[in-house]
Amino acid sequence: MTLQDARTPENGSTDGEKPQIGWHKGYVSGSRPDLRVPVRRVHLTNGKDVTLYDTSGPYTDPQIETDVRRGLAPVRENWIIARGDTEEYAGRPLRPEDDGIKHTSPRGGLRNLDAVFPGRPRQPRRGRAGTPVTQLAYAQRGEITAEMEYVAVRENVSPEFVRDEIAAGRAVLPANINHPEIEPMIIGKNFLVKVNANIGNSAVTSSIEEEVEKMTWATRWGADTVMDLSTGRNIHTTREWVLRNSPVPIGTVPLYQALEKVDGKAEELTWEIYKDTVIEQAEQGVDYMTVHAGVLLRYVPLTANRKTGIVSRGGSIMAAWCLAHHQESFLYTHFEELCDILAAYDVTFSLGDGLRPGSIADANDAAQFAELRTLGELNTIAKRHGVQTMIEGPGHVPMHKIKENVDLQQEICEEAPFYTLGPLTTDIAPAYDHITSGIGAAMIAWWGTAMLCYVTPKEHLGLPDRDDVKTGVITYKIAAHAADLAKGHPGAQEWDDALSDARFEFRWEDQFNLALDPDTARAFHDATLPAEPAKTAHFCSMCGPKFCSMKISQDIRREHGSALAVDADAEAGMAEKSKEFAAAGNRVYLPIAD
Amino acid sequence: MTLQDARTPENGSTDGEKPQIGWHKGYVSGSRPDLRVPVRRVHLTNGKDVTLYDTSGPYTDPQIETDVRRGLAPVRENWIIARGDTEEYAGRPLRPEDDGIKHTSPRGGLRNLDAVFPGRPRQPRRGRAGTPVTQLAYAQRGEITAEMEYVAVRENVSPEFVRDEIAAGRAVLPANINHPEIEPMIIGKNFLVKVNANIGNSAVTSSIEEEVEKMTWATRWGADTVMDLSTGRNIHTTREWVLRNSPVPIGTVPLYQALEKVDGKAEELTWEIYKDTVIEQAEQGVDYMTVHAGVLLRYVPLTANRKTGIVSRGGSIMAAWCLAHHQESFLYTHFEELCDILAAYDVTFSLGDGLRPGSIADANDAAQFAELRTLGELNTIAKRHGVQTMIEGPGHVPMHKIKENVDLQQEICEEAPFYTLGPLTTDIAPAYDHITSGIGAAMIAWWGTAMLCYVTPKEHLGLPDRDDVKTGVITYKIAAHAADLAKGHPGAQEWDDALSDARFEFRWEDQFNLALDPDTARAFHDATLPAEPAKTAHFCSMCGPKFCSMKISQDIRREHGSALAVDADAEAGMAEKSKEFAAAGNRVYLPIAD
Repeated sequence: MTLQDARTPENGSTDGEKPQIGWHKGYVSGSRPDLRVPVRRVHLTNGKDVTLYDTSGPYTDPQIETDVRRGLAPVRENWIIARGDTEEYAGRPLRPEDDGIKHTSPRGGLRNLDAVFPGRPRQPRRGRAGTPVTQLAYAQRGEITAEMEYVAVRENVSPEFVRDEIAAGRAVLPANINHPEIEPMIIGKNFLVKVNANIGNSAVTSSIEEEVEKMTWATRWGADTVMDLSTGRNIHTTREWVLRNSPVPIGTVPLYQALEKVDGKAEELTWEIYKDTVIEQAEQGVDYMTVHAGVLLRYVPLTANRKTGIVSRGGSIMAAWCLAHHQESFLYTHFEELCDILAAYDVTFSLGDGLRPGSIADANDAAQFAELRTLGELNTIAKRHGVQTMIEGPGHVPMHKIKENVDLQQEICEEAPFYTLGPLTTDIAPAYDHITSGIGAAMIAWWGTAMLCYVTPKEHLGLPDRDDVKTGVITYKIAAHAADLAKGHPGAQEWDDALSDARFEFRWEDQFNLALDPDTARAFHDATLPAEPAKTAHFCSMCGPKFCSMKISQDIRREHGSALAVDADAEAGMAEKSKEFAAAGNRVYLPIAD
Repeated sequence: MTLQDARTPENGSTDGEKPQIGWHKGYVSGSRPDLRVPVRRVHLTNGKDVTLYDTSGPYTDPQIETDVRRGLAPVRENWIIARGDTEEYAGRPLRPEDDGIKHTSPRGGLRNLDAVFPGRPRQPRRGRAGTPVTQLAYAQRGEITAEMEYVAVRENVSPEFVRDEIAAGRAVLPANINHPEIEPMIIGKNFLVKVNANIGNSAVTSSIEEEVEKMTWATRWGADTVMDLSTGRNIHTTREWVLRNSPVPIGTVPLYQALEKVDGKAEELTWEIYKDTVIEQAEQGVDYMTVHAGVLLRYVPLTANRKTGIVSRGGSIMAAWCLAHHQESFLYTHFEELCDILAAYDVTFSLGDGLRPGSIADANDAAQFAELRTLGELNTIAKRHGVQTMIEGPGHVPMHKIKENVDLQQEICEEAPFYTLGPLTTDIAPAYDHITSGIGAAMIAWWGTAMLCYVTPKEHLGLPDRDDVKTGVITYKIAAHAADLAKGHPGAQEWDDALSDARFEFRWEDQFNLALDPDTARAFHDATLPAEPAKTAHFCSMCGPKFCSMKISQDIRREHGSALAVDADAEAGMAEKSKEFAAAGNRVYLPIAD
């Protein structure tokens, strides 16, 4: 592997040169020239470098010109074609109702869609008849794909390990063959914990531009995947813009769009409408889809005495459908057919927990765990069809009931990746549910959840704006990293150590550059001690020059360095050093300029 | 017990009447007329009431006129006098250096102090010679004080239980006899988890007014105690203003002021200067004091190879003193004398963890646990002297090392209340350390910590302002309540249930009024759906009218209510109900106006 470093915009260093301090985008190469894994390289004032995982895509590489109207380069395209198991085809014709438009113009078709994505048209691609073209199928055959090697480099493990984890169903590598723009990533408990950010307009608010902006903004702060949960007009077109510009896998809930097509009438949903929507989205390149196939008719009564009934949108839609028809849902009865469709595009299942608890009172109840057992059966079927699968989890769960969720899911679902929303550990703090859930997220990830779906401060209250997206992502990156530490993930603590070293040595700029959010850390520091020299001052802004404990501790180490070594002569050495200390004038505090 | 309700300012209802909705200050009476325990009474639109613990003091009672220049009424004064075991005395004369003022005016004394507190002068009070006047001593003798009854009402337990927990040393009731203004509260693992907020000016920034304002602001949002960690000028006077206006116990670190008196030269500290400072603060009414008596000379070398040395200010000062003198600290060698002083005022010990880890790398190391064992010995000595004692804890600890901290502390310190700072579960997120630590705080409280010391977003970066104080308190109230839930504390879940009921029934105003922070919850909701009718609309602002899962779920319950009961006839009932549903037009969505 070699390191290729992109130029840093801030300091104007020339190509190939590293900046003195700050950070820049670098790449780690694999075995082939077109396999370049992005990293964030932080250059410290002490001459050392720290390499961090990077999700921000080409947007942070000043050598790459990006244009949201053209979309990102299809970096995976050649890999997909070279495998020779897929074919281009005409694809499903687009229809006005794909964007929630009911009236048809005389000429019909795309002309009715608002703000059509202007980038190059691309024929959709699918697996040749009967062949799953999934990373799972390749792994099961013992093949190591370029995507697997990519994530091996990214996670600092062997490609064989990646392949084996995917083959066992313990990890998924969501990568639709129609989304060649992504930088491959992996979701599994034996890899770094990942974070998903939800975006999406609704009937009430938001626009296409805002959603694309939220996607790039979320990945800039560390989102590993993004779910587009749009529900209003322009669903198809919004998704197209998001997909063509996204360096991370995109997830959706196809049911939302299908429901729009039947004007919001759940009981009018059919397998045909749903299937058509799944194919529409698979052709666009959606990498994973939430499917609420575990909501069975007989489980609905189990929610009747709940505090908050069914809080999953997909779950409540399917429950309404089941009741209206008094039969099992088309998602359940057509599940194997659905598997074959997903296998032809390598869409990953995210089996939705439609009966997840929506309040502390409803956590870990019969409805929730009944559905989980069904998800376990569906997971086995999906794997048999070669479809990668992860399992969604709650929700609202008090701390003492969290571990049972992971343990049961791992047991029932043969260690398939768990993908949880929070969980929120209390219901009493609307406007702070990023925190109520960040607590639960850190714990559930420590115990084995592979990906965390973020919750923003607007949860339960409104749609997140740009600031909320950032707060949600940062909060969940904290939870994910805290879990990586607790799991003893190799290398996780290097980041903490680098930052703590910088803190102890008063290298303020290094602290900021290593922080999850350098901008806010710097701004908070400057609010108390705005002067530039303060950033190199040997004291903290909390305590002032005389009281800083870090400084006193450093002084102790400097004055007593040798004697502080823990050895047999420690006491004797200390006595001697004590005299030296007195002889030197008992100086505990060195001048600030020191 | 009877309920006395104060008038609500917002709705102008007359005395004794309850408001229709919103909240107001109420009181629960004990066995004597002067024992009135404040509560926050939330009145819901469905006619129900929810009673919540209230820390905000007389400031939120419109029937009480407060004036920070006069201070709060000494509600405990008669109780203290009636016990007949204390005496007033002249007290220690105030000196300019108490406020960090070095030059002496010709007339000396108080005239040199800035902004002297103008309220009524009060003679200090102390226990008659040789008699500990502590809640611990009373409890050990089997007495139930008015303070114990007060907290029994407040915590909804029996006075005998309170007495027994205090007598066993498992709980403390910090209540200096010179701080008669407080509303008594209790800290112990078998009571509600408490939250402390730190305030305090420093040499660098802040003023007296700001600190008093921060104290009332912190208690308004739920701080159970406040520590005044001032270090610059006006330490004595700032503390006087804070104490006279504080309805909650005030903690300090006397070492900070003592160090100011020797111009910041740690090695010049003496037992006499320290003792004089402790008496000064005890006469003012400080309720608990952090004492770093566990930093022994032989432990200092254990920190030499740490990533971040000694990060506790008190710990580093005492370590420097030990090294300079090459002997055990005066805190350790005079510990029994210190106990006798604290016993004469009922000041509670908060035995400081001067060697707590300041980074993930240093968690649970030899230095930390060596000091903990010494704190255990000191705890036993303090109890023998009748002094209430709690033990401070870390710091920076990754999730998988948190539980060991509580378990060891509980074992070594005979279940004395644990009082922890966070812990922060990762070092990588300066500017978000309320969250990195909120995660650890919730967990450590679940496992047995009795009080959590908050961390604000400015931790490591600067001094918290008003907004930071609020964010820190709310974050820690979340952690404390999440722990109360996980511990199965009786009644804790009622709050969550009330809010979740309101959420499920679209009672938006009730949701806001029940929220930990009603203002922000309401503002966030209004940002998406500002119109007043939206607050009663039967859909959420996230999903719009058609998609709201809560609404679908409610509709299901309404249409199928009887059939959804989980009984033997469920299936049959559902089939029948399904027909009814179809007959009613398959309406899944009812009109919004419904």
